[in-house]
Amino acid sequence: TRSYKIALIKGDGIGPEIIEEAVKVLDAVSYAEGFELKYDEYLLGGAAIDATDDPAPKETLEGVKQADAVLFGAIGGEKWDNLPREKRPETGLLKLRKEMEVFANIRPVTVYNELVNASTLKPSVVQGVDLIVVRELIGGIYFGQPRGNDGNKAFNTMVYSKPEIERIARVAFDIAMKRSKRVCSVDKANVLDVSQLWRDTVEEIAKEYPEVTLTHMYVDNAAMQLIRDPKQFDVILTGNIFGDILSDEASMLSGSIGLLPSASIGEKFGLYEPIHGSAPDIAGQGIANPIATIASAAMMLRYALNEEVAAGRIEQAIKQTLSEGYRTQDLSSYDAKEVCSTSEIGSIIANYA
Amino acid sequence: TRSYKIALIKGDGIGPEIIEEAVKVLDAVSYAEGFELKYDEYLLGGAAIDATDDPAPKETLEGVKQADAVLFGAIGGEKWDNLPREKRPETGLLKLRKEMEVFANIRPVTVYNELVNASTLKPSVVQGVDLIVVRELIGGIYFGQPRGNDGNKAFNTMVYSKPEIERIARVAFDIAMKRSKRVCSVDKANVLDVSQLWRDTVEEIAKEYPEVTLTHMYVDNAAMQLIRDPKQFDVILTGNIFGDILSDEASMLSGSIGLLPSASIGEKFGLYEPIHGSAPDIAGQGIANPIATIASAAMMLRYALNEEVAAGRIEQAIKQTLSEGYRTQDLSSYDAKEVCSTSEIGSIIANYA
Ligand SMILES: CC(C)[C@H](C(=O)O)[C@@H](O)C(=O)O
Ligand SMILES: CC(C)[C@H](C(=O)O)[C@@H](O)C(=O)O
Repeated sequence: TRSYKIALIKGDGIGPEIIEEAVKVLDAVSYAEGFELKYDEYLLGGAAIDATDDPAPKETLEGVKQADAVLFGAIGGEKWDNLPREKRPETGLLKLRKEMEVFANIRPVTVYNELVNASTLKPSVVQGVDLIVVRELIGGIYFGQPRGNDGNKAFNTMVYSKPEIERIARVAFDIAMKRSKRVCSVDKANVLDVSQLWRDTVEEIAKEYPEVTLTHMYVDNAAMQLIRDPKQFDVILTGNIFGDILSDEASMLSGSIGLLPSASIGEKFGLYEPIHGSAPDIAGQGIANPIATIASAAMMLRYALNEEVAAGRIEQAIKQTLSEGYRTQDLSSYDAKEVCSTSEIGSIIANYA
Repeated sequence: TRSYKIALIKGDGIGPEIIEEAVKVLDAVSYAEGFELKYDEYLLGGAAIDATDDPAPKETLEGVKQADAVLFGAIGGEKWDNLPREKRPETGLLKLRKEMEVFANIRPVTVYNELVNASTLKPSVVQGVDLIVVRELIGGIYFGQPRGNDGNKAFNTMVYSKPEIERIARVAFDIAMKRSKRVCSVDKANVLDVSQLWRDTVEEIAKEYPEVTLTHMYVDNAAMQLIRDPKQFDVILTGNIFGDILSDEASMLSGSIGLLPSASIGEKFGLYEPIHGSAPDIAGQGIANPIATIASAAMMLRYALNEEVAAGRIEQAIKQTLSEGYRTQDLSSYDAKEVCSTSEIGSIIANYA
């Protein structure tokens, strides 16, 4: 039988609860489809700081490389917010991404028909939205050197090299080729030198994909257009910090940040995680929405393990669960037949998968 | 009689049309309130490039300093998009802002009750929204050195000094004192050194304003919260590029980017401009919405000339015009009694003012 090693990083806050439900669903589909998943747990973020005084312990950075894929919950919380930067949970996550060289963060935003009323945007605006944000993840201002803060002046460097832009652009164009063949590259080329190189390089790569229509948009306009008319977008290609901002904004089209998965992919490794954070305020209460994590597990099956059928079963099960009116608390006001706990909704999805 | 010198910069695209309407309204209220406005025109952006080969000619940079305030339309257009950066229209605007030392960009976002259906967000979400984005305007990554692009690698520097942060923070707290006394400072302190200094400095300034409640929010979350629940915000304080993105996003709460004014203020000078761009695609057709510019003129009367009564008259006239159902084309689907041209709506507002 096919057997895969999955590295699990539960993290902080609601991380452990939502990962548990994803594992429940993964176990159900792997059993049904006749393959085996073996899990190894690793520490990251606050949990790792508490245990080892290091937000990204060596065992984690090395260990995950032995796995076929990494499934990650969420990290962070007030408890660790006042530590120096190199000891923060977030620094651990950035180190992990860099170490795994997962340069492409793929964030699909689809609006479930069943939840079209859950968004603060009008149903007519969000119904049928189906876009993907392709965000560069291990470059840009997040990692640029030099950087510093002497208490009187502080600075960071936003930097991209041409090869960095080329490889992320290819990811976006490859994805577009399997979809509506439209890429919108987002930058601030009217102000930033780094955006000018971004734009010029994306133009060059576009020549390799004559079937794909490439447009460019300034980031301020993109933040507006995502709300004005989100259906105009197919694939949005952008850098690290613009992608961070725009993908969180775009998550609101779906009605809850608890619904959206992501895949972070490089040449060798893949990291799968919900786009939401660790939500310490609701941790341990059994009310967190595990769907984003379960959907991330489906992306993992598809992209890392090539288990397309199993991935499709999970996605189908999520839809069925929602269309039958099962809702976690965050979505309880939208056509809910029954409000479920984190673990109840996980079981229902596992059951349908 | 009181007499003021106004520098007019019409700019490109729809700039001339919308400035013309603002002047019409200004003339009406100044006459009614017994003061005199004298206008001098200056070139900036594309118009300046065409005439002088320089997007910010010396006559403009010097001339505006002789005025009591500057009223500005919009600049830019495809025609000039492929010029080298130092010759672009946008570079002219950045030079003007820097030269005038207008470090505080104040962007109020209010939702007119009359247009509560015009937003793509649900009326219940946007009705009653009344927030102000206070954006630092002459620092951060827009101006940071070093910067460069050698065709293979490009970079910009996001930099703030403590005094720069202190002065913009004070502007935000001063504004909050006259409102609901809440400041939400937006940064990315979990990743950026410059945001850490931002946050620490804003905390220090907050001590001077014990009555104001200060909160902090990461920029990705802010982009989400602006859509999820915009009414939570009173004053949003942020840096140059985050403010650029968030204020454009926030403009969508009002239903049209054609409605929102801004004031850019420094120790000595003030620059008043709509937050929208030059919209070359609709220029010269008489369909542009001049309301953002007319509202910017009202801000100019209030902040630069201390003509509070006249400012209030303009704002009242805009409300009356909208509540009677007069609409430019961008808003023609929302409770319109009559769809008006740019100049018609300007005349109606002037008449009511
Ligand atoms: C936690 C934080 C460092 C992270 C980021 O900014 O990349 C998060 O916001 C995300 O988008 O995954
Ligand atoms: C035209 C451009 C340089 C400008 C900016 O980014 O500041 C505009 O978007 C604005 O917000 O006024």
